Amino acid sequence: MRGARVAPHGRILARARVSTPVADGPDAILGALAGLCRNLAGRTRVAAVGLGVPGAVSQRRGVVFSSPNIPCWHDEPIGPRLARRLGLPVLVDNDANLHALGEHWLGAGKGVPNLVLATLGTGIGGGIVLRGRLWHGDAGRAGELGHTVVDPDGPLCGCGATGCVEAYASATGILRAWRFENRVTPSSRGAAARRILRDTPETIAARARRGDPRALAVFAEAGRALGVATASWLQALDVHTVVFGGGVAGALDLLEPLVRIELDARLFGLDARRIRILRAALGDDAGILGAAKLALGKGSGG
Amino acid sequence: MRGARVAPHGRILARARVSTPVADGPDAILGALAGLCRNLAGRTRVAAVGLGVPGAVSQRRGVVFSSPNIPCWHDEPIGPRLARRLGLPVLVDNDANLHALGEHWLGAGKGVPNLVLATLGTGIGGGIVLRGRLWHGDAGRAGELGHTVVDPDGPLCGCGATGCVEAYASATGILRAWRFENRVTPSSRGAAARRILRDTPETIAARARRGDPRALAVFAEAGRALGVATASWLQALDVHTVVFGGGVAGALDLLEPLVRIELDARLFGLDARRIRILRAALGDDAGILGAAKLALGKGSGG
Repeated sequence: MRGARVAPHGRILARARVSTPVADGPDAILGALAGLCRNLAGRTRVAAVGLGVPGAVSQRRGVVFSSPNIPCWHDEPIGPRLARRLGLPVLVDNDANLHALGEHWLGAGKGVPNLVLATLGTGIGGGIVLRGRLWHGDAGRAGELGHTVVDPDGPLCGCGATGCVEAYASATGILRAWRFENRVTPSSRGAAARRILRDTPETIAARARRGDPRALAVFAEAGRALGVATASWLQALDVHTVVFGGGVAGALDLLEPLVRIELDARLFGLDARRIRILRAALGDDAGILGAAKLALGKGSGG
Repeated sequence: MRGARVAPHGRILARARVSTPVADGPDAILGALAGLCRNLAGRTRVAAVGLGVPGAVSQRRGVVFSSPNIPCWHDEPIGPRLARRLGLPVLVDNDANLHALGEHWLGAGKGVPNLVLATLGTGIGGGIVLRGRLWHGDAGRAGELGHTVVDPDGPLCGCGATGCVEAYASATGILRAWRFENRVTPSSRGAAARRILRDTPETIAARARRGDPRALAVFAEAGRALGVATASWLQALDVHTVVFGGGVAGALDLLEPLVRIELDARLFGLDARRIRILRAALGDDAGILGAAKLALGKGSGG
C-alpha cells in the first residue's frame, strides 16, 4: 500500500509504503493502513484521507464489496472503520476513478471540464469526469470502459464475454495477439518460441517501431479496437478529451494513428479534429493525487 | 410544427399545429413559430418557451447548426430571434434529448435519477439524463447513441460508417435485414417480392409473433445488436434505467429477450437483473413535455 501527504494545491509532501498483511485478515490490514496514515501525518494537521482501492466500492458508504488484491475483504466498511480509528473523514473510491480524477486535477486533463480516462494495464480500467466531478452511476460502477464491446464475435475477454476492448488493447490482449501472429502457444518449444513468450508490450512496441510487420499488426489491431471503443464513448458522452494511462499507453505513438482513423471514419455529428487524445501525465502518482483531491473535496466541504 | 401550452406540473392545456413554410425561408419559419406560440398562449401568462429541433443545436446559444427537416437553417439563432419576437425566454434543444427529458419527467423514467433513452425510428437518436438533467457534453452533441459501434465489420449505416447499432435496430436496419433474409432487393419483381417490399417493422413484427422464422431472425439480430450497444452504454455510465421509444419499440416484446441475453452475458461488475428495460410511455407527447420541462427550468430559475 502506497500513501502520501498532499498539500491542498497538490504538492506531494511525504510518501510512505507498507506491505499489505493480506494473510492476517481485515483487522491487520486496517491497522497497517492506520499506521501508514499516522506515519504520513506526523505532527501536521490532516484534513481528510482519500483511499483508492482496486475493485468494487460503494463511494457513498465507504464499503469495498470485493477487491482482487485483498481477497479477505468482503463488504468491508473500510471507510467508516478507518475514519473511527483516525478521527478523520475517510473517502473511498475505485483506483481507476481516482486515476481519472488525479489526471483531471493536475495531469493531462488539467483545465478541461470533462474527460474520459482508460488505463491500459493487465486489464483496462477507466474513469469518467463530468463537470469536474467523477461520474459514479447508479451503483458506483461507472467507467468500466474495458468492457465496451468492439466486436461481439471477437476474442475472449477476462470477464467471460467476447470482443471487449480489454481483449484487444490491454497488455493481456496484446500478448495474446503477439503469440497468435507468431503461431506460438504457452506450450511451444524452441528458442524462437521462448523469445516470443518472454516478450512484453514494451518489447513488442520496440519491434514495431523497428518495422517488424507482425508487431505492427498487433498494435494496428489494438489501436483499431481502441478507436472503435473510443468512438462509442464519444458518441454517447461528447467528451473532447480522452486520456490513456497504464503501461500500454507507452505505445500511444503506435496506437494513436489507428485510433484517429476510426474516429475520423466513425464520429457522427462530432468533429474528430477537436478530440484530444493524451497520454496520462502523472504516472503512478495519478491515483495518489486523485485520492488527495477526493479527500480535499470533503475536507473543504465541497 | 406541433406545440402545446403546458401547466407547471405537466398537464397539456392546449395543442396546436402549423405546417413549416420551409420553402419561404428562415423569416417565414420564425413568423410561423411565433404565431403558433401566440395562438397557444392566448390570454394566459406564459413563463417561457421550449423548442425541440431534430438536428444539431447549441443549447447554450439557442442556435440550430443544421436540421435535416429544415435545410434553410444554417447556424440559425432561432432561440434569441424567437425570444425577441415573443418577449419570452426561449430554450432550444435537440428533439431526442427532449424526448429523454420528457420521459424522465413524466413517463417511463419518472422518479429515477439517471436514464438512457434511445428512440428507434428511421434512425436511432438518444438522450442521457444524469442526476435529473440532460447531459449535453462538450459541444452539445451527447446522446448520439445510434452510432454506438456493435460490430466494425457490420452493415453500412446511414452515417457512412459500418456496424453502428442504427444499422441493425432502426426501422431502416430492420427493413434491410428483412429484405436480405428474403433475398429481395428494391428491383425484385413478382407478387411475393412486392409483399416483402411493402412490409414495415410493424408487419414484420406481427409475422414474427406468428412464428415466421425469417421475421424472428430479423428481430433476433436487431435485439442482439441493441443488447451489445446497451451493454456498452451501461458499462460506461452505470445507469440502471434504459428506455426505448420510437416506432420499433412497439416490438420491444420481441427485442427485450435478446437484449437481456446480451446483458446477462456481457455486464461486468453490474447486476443485469437490476437493469430496467422500459418502453417509452408518452408517445408523441414526450418531446413536447420535455420542451415544457426545459422551459420550466428557465421559467423557475432552475
